[in-house]
Amino acid sequence: MSAHTQSLQELIDALSLLPGVGRKSATRMAFYLVRQPVEVAHKISFAISNARDRIVFCEICQNLCEISPCERCAHPVRDEDLLCVVESPQDLVAIEATHEFHGRFHVLHGAISPLDGITPADLKIRELVVRLSSGAFREVILATNPSVEGEATAAYLKRLIAPLGIAVTRIASGLPMGAQLEFADKATLGRSLLDRRPI
Amino acid sequence: MSAHTQSLQELIDALSLLPGVGRKSATRMAFYLVRQPVEVAHKISFAISNARDRIVFCEICQNLCEISPCERCAHPVRDEDLLCVVESPQDLVAIEATHEFHGRFHVLHGAISPLDGITPADLKIRELVVRLSSGAFREVILATNPSVEGEATAAYLKRLIAPLGIAVTRIASGLPMGAQLEFADKATLGRSLLDRRPI
Repeated sequence: MSAHTQSLQELIDALSLLPGVGRKSATRMAFYLVRQPVEVAHKISFAISNARDRIVFCEICQNLCEISPCERCAHPVRDEDLLCVVESPQDLVAIEATHEFHGRFHVLHGAISPLDGITPADLKIRELVVRLSSGAFREVILATNPSVEGEATAAYLKRLIAPLGIAVTRIASGLPMGAQLEFADKATLGRSLLDRRPI
Repeated sequence: MSAHTQSLQELIDALSLLPGVGRKSATRMAFYLVRQPVEVAHKISFAISNARDRIVFCEICQNLCEISPCERCAHPVRDEDLLCVVESPQDLVAIEATHEFHGRFHVLHGAISPLDGITPADLKIRELVVRLSSGAFREVILATNPSVEGEATAAYLKRLIAPLGIAVTRIASGLPMGAQLEFADKATLGRSLLDRRPI
């Protein structure tokens, strides 16, 4: 006799596909779901298939949206000639939340990572180059993560964009606001010294 | 402009309903799902609604099953007169995995917890009493958790079952196998002394 009834086992298997969800979490979620009112299970079920069915890449910025071009690309912005390149839609949301950037965005959907088999061809880089070729942009801000992959992607893009005569900048790295030097990691503190700025 | 497109925001909200899933995890799951092939999203979506639609309580043991009475209740067992009472279907699976129990099960679906508003009426206790009234059982093993709620539930059931003339036992508490006295918590070590057995 198997431990769980078939549809429950299938649900556990399906939930285990989610990122960060192991067998134990999936089992807990499955038991939770089958004990909820039918509407709750159906609501979650519908949200998953509906989102997957409706969401497409914006033909301009490559962000996820329901109607391409996305609301953000269709909207006029203050700095039409400024383009910010990010790894993911979540990064775009984080930058928007600062209210410090008023230009256009471009989402790469990842970073170059040979160890994970992610090459420039897997990212929305071709679309970026086509966009920049229009000559509409004065400056490109590379806002990929300050990680090995993010830095490698920024270096790759710098080499690719420089010949187009567009200024290329990189977001600053250094101590987070409110941090204490004493507890900062060496790499971050070292970078904050190298990138010191006049005040 | 909202941070996420509508169907994506609805998916994040829906996934946040899952136990142990906060807004950050839900966002990560949502972005993962909309980037998967359509079949993956549909598979998970279907598994959720299908399991919820098919699963019912077994009319005998109250465990979750697709056809009532469940496979386990329909199956002959070695100890027909022995009943093990557990809080949850997961606990039943854990006991089955020990291969030390060959009787019948009864699932309460929770434990008495006044602070969480869970009273005896919220558990499958009425069904347990009806089952025991048949006179088919010689002994009831109370295998609720050795927690405040589980102990309270066991004490409550003991008072309820004793008048029926059925032996009531409780699973042993004590040091886990392989544990070291030095690192055991006081409550567990104290219990292992109180419940010492002749060898």
